Formats: sequence, structure tokens, C-alpha cells
Amino acid sequence: MLIVQEGLHSEPVPVTRLELCKVQLMNDASFPWIILVPDLPNIQEIYQLETADRALLMEEIAQASRVIVNLYKPDKLNIGSMGNLVSNLHIHVIGRFHDDRAWPGPVWGHGPVHSYNKEDLRETCKRLRQAFATVTGTSA
Amino acid sequence: MLIVQEGLHSEPVPVTRLELCKVQLMNDASFPWIILVPDLPNIQEIYQLETADRALLMEEIAQASRVIVNLYKPDKLNIGSMGNLVSNLHIHVIGRFHDDRAWPGPVWGHGPVHSYNKEDLRETCKRLRQAFATVTGTSA
Repeated sequence: MLIVQEGLHSEPVPVTRLELCKVQLMNDASFPWIILVPDLPNIQEIYQLETADRALLMEEIAQASRVIVNLYKPDKLNIGSMGNLVSNLHIHVIGRFHDDRAWPGPVWGHGPVHSYNKEDLRETCKRLRQAFATVTGTSA
Repeated sequence: MLIVQEGLHSEPVPVTRLELCKVQLMNDASFPWIILVPDLPNIQEIYQLETADRALLMEEIAQASRVIVNLYKPDKLNIGSMGNLVSNLHIHVIGRFHDDRAWPGPVWGHGPVHSYNKEDLRETCKRLRQAFATVTGTSA
């Protein structure tokens, strides 16, 4: 993966949207790293969602998991709702590899960030959109 | 909280069980830290569960969240499915505080572990069982 920028912070990039969540790509080529953001105001924690939205969120977590498994064949998935720095509810879905830089620790706070270059970023978002369309049975 | 042992590793302690999951307490008094273990064989990832079990898991995550919020009033919840070291599916539900030792980073790999003493451990498990009974509408 070509890298054009190295830093401590990564900005998420819009990819697509699902029934409940906006799908973003963490702009760190070190890990296949999707963020699901329920498109609802003023929600910080999963238990604050309505039951039906929680079930929907769970299915969208499963969809994002399958997208990462299909595209990247990771050794493990890490899924987390943290929000210690950005409190609005968002779920990380990350493909992990035995030889990735943070293994077996968590990825958060384990920099430096390796941003995608412009072309790789566009291509990765396109592949993710297609993979989500396949997994959800919609058109990309 | 009285502490009788300090180390790098913590063993989870059985607390109760829910419809899908066994509930365990991480034996680290540094954080209110529950582990949900779906009582099913050979499952490593959330997406491998049946849809109905995923919905149930989500509700049990919400129940564990409410238990921690009711008992500990944390500043934030951290919820995660990692499994990089223990691959069988298990979900961490952790109460976080702005002044806890790992804030704002993740708790995993952020030792040392402060085990509960025997009496605190028994008392904490009892309070958790009662709180789960309240949240789930069952008897403790």
C-alpha cells in the first residue's frame, strides 16, 4: 500500500450508507478499518438506542464484518464501541492480522497513522462500496 | 477498593448467566469490567452467530451496560469484541472514568491488574447478580 502521509491522527472518509449507519473508512492503511455511525442525534451508548435500532446496528456490524472478511481475509476481527475521545456513538470494525503492527494489542492509540494516498483511498472506497452492495444485496 | 494482588494477568470470575451468555467479572478492580460469553461452541466472530442469537447478544450487551451504569455511574462505556489472545467469542463491557488509569486509551494491555480481595470479589459478584436480576426482570 502506498503511503503519502504519516501522522498521529486519522480522519474517517465517507464510503456509503446502510439503513441505520453511515459507513466510513478510517484513513489508516495499516488496518482494514471501517467505522459505522448510526445516523441519529444525541446517542453516545448502544443501550440508549431503541431495541429495533440495536438489532439493526448488530446486523450492520455483521455486514461490515463480512465485507472485511471477504475483501481482506483477516486472522481476526476486532469490533468496538469506545468513544472516549469522540463521544457520539460509532462502532469500529477492524480486520486484524498476526503480523500487523499492533497485534495482539488493540489498534487504538497505537500509531503512527499511515494515510492512504489519494488513488488508493478512492480505489479502497470503491471496493468497499461494491462489497457492501454484495453483502446487503443492493446495487453499488 | 482493597487490593491484595497485583499482576499482569486477570482471570474472569463467573457471576451469573443470561439467556445466551455466561456473565463473568474480570478480576481487576481498576475498572467495572464484565465479560459476556455466548454459550455456544466454535464461534469466534459475531457474524458467525445466527441472526436471532446476534439480536439476543445485542440485548444482553445492553443489559450489561445498564448494570454497569446503574451500579457505577461511569463517564463512558467501552464495549468490545477482540479475542486476539482468547479467540472464542466474548464481549467486554467496561465502565470508564475520566480519571481511570488508562483513560482515554483502551484498557486492554494496560496493566498492572489489581485483583479484588476475596471479600470484595464476593460482594461485587453479589451486587452484579442483583443488578442483572433487576435489569432482566428475573430473581437474583
